[in-house]
Amino acid sequence: MKIEKYDKDKDFSFSFGAFPTFELVKNKAQNVVAVVYHSKLKITGEVEKLFNLCRQNGIELLQDDKTIEKIANKENVFVMGIFKKYAGKKASGNNLVLVNPSDMGNLGTIMRTALGFGIKNLAIVKPAVDYFNPKVVRASMGAIFSLNIVEFENLADYLKTPNKKYFFMLNGKQILGKAQIADKNFDLVFGNEAHGLPAECENYGETILIKHSNKIDSLNLPISVGIALYETFKG
Amino acid sequence: MKIEKYDKDKDFSFSFGAFPTFELVKNKAQNVVAVVYHSKLKITGEVEKLFNLCRQNGIELLQDDKTIEKIANKENVFVMGIFKKYAGKKASGNNLVLVNPSDMGNLGTIMRTALGFGIKNLAIVKPAVDYFNPKVVRASMGAIFSLNIVEFENLADYLKTPNKKYFFMLNGKQILGKAQIADKNFDLVFGNEAHGLPAECENYGETILIKHSNKIDSLNLPISVGIALYETFKG
Repeated sequence: MKIEKYDKDKDFSFSFGAFPTFELVKNKAQNVVAVVYHSKLKITGEVEKLFNLCRQNGIELLQDDKTIEKIANKENVFVMGIFKKYAGKKASGNNLVLVNPSDMGNLGTIMRTALGFGIKNLAIVKPAVDYFNPKVVRASMGAIFSLNIVEFENLADYLKTPNKKYFFMLNGKQILGKAQIADKNFDLVFGNEAHGLPAECENYGETILIKHSNKIDSLNLPISVGIALYETFKG
Repeated sequence: MKIEKYDKDKDFSFSFGAFPTFELVKNKAQNVVAVVYHSKLKITGEVEKLFNLCRQNGIELLQDDKTIEKIANKENVFVMGIFKKYAGKKASGNNLVLVNPSDMGNLGTIMRTALGFGIKNLAIVKPAVDYFNPKVVRASMGAIFSLNIVEFENLADYLKTPNKKYFFMLNGKQILGKAQIADKNFDLVFGNEAHGLPAECENYGETILIKHSNKIDSLNLPISVGIALYETFKG
């Protein structure tokens, strides 16, 4: 098997490290091509668990120092999964929606946080970073493999969808914590790190503000998402 | 003036970029040595504002391409402030307390978030990253210059302080949002990114849990802090 470095136009990607790779095998075994490890890999309890899960699922376990060094060496990684990319499905229920996310670390952190608050569906409106990039996978700590992720080509396409929409904006008309949020089938929508959401969004749903002091311009995106998910799902 | 690259053992540091440097001059003019810019600096409205503020405060404005290139070139920075480090003061009121923070980007993000929720006092328990490192200053977007920051040599020293303490732990006994928080003179305390807080903390105050699903091990540190500050200060 000849393994090439990650390329967004190719149809496979990588999970770096034992924990994200365990999440990959647990949730998406049918997409795993192989799990590759380096002779320097320390066999911890976590690694044992991963190897056992691979054997149970009939997944190929390869020791291949050269491949690890080529693909993941800079990342100080000694075990990785190789998987075929897959597409999510438009689903009913609640969605977290990110419009034009531009930072891979932020996107991974948001995936992990979303999973932590029971979100199953993530929609990403393009242009956006490539969500299968190994940096996103890693920042998500494998949460990506538990989420159903769909992409929209542009905002107009997304705005045609039927769910009730709550747009988080610095000039939102309702205050988070006081706003009524629907019981089900709603979307929490967040804009780009630098530019937020376009003003036209207010024609397509409610706008919500997370109140903060005037000493800062805005909260950063993963923190805004974390606070909104906490407030909405704390029960 | 001979300017050396940042070194945690020297007594000056840098703010990179117009916005953090504006915050520096606005809040800590007495500590500013000079503001230095590159001939390639684009004179935006933000830069004009910064330069005017420097003139009002009698702060030296130097065009010095070599210094910028030496100190901040990799960062794609064309204007920076040079400032003398300063110490905070132990203060009454509420504190955000970080025990052994180990990531500079996280620390800066937490500073910005803290300022956004009205926190004025930040305590850092060592060992910890150097909070005056330019990476922290930058990630804080200048919020560092509006906070009163004190360091404790170790956890035992911090635990002797009189404020009521709320320790955020994965096995916290009270649930955030249901726990009663004191009206004033309290501390919200968070542990290291990887290890959290030591179990002994429960002998020194209340322990609080931010509830999340069992699909993730933990929320990341800046998001936990953001949620806790939001819930505590939303009024």
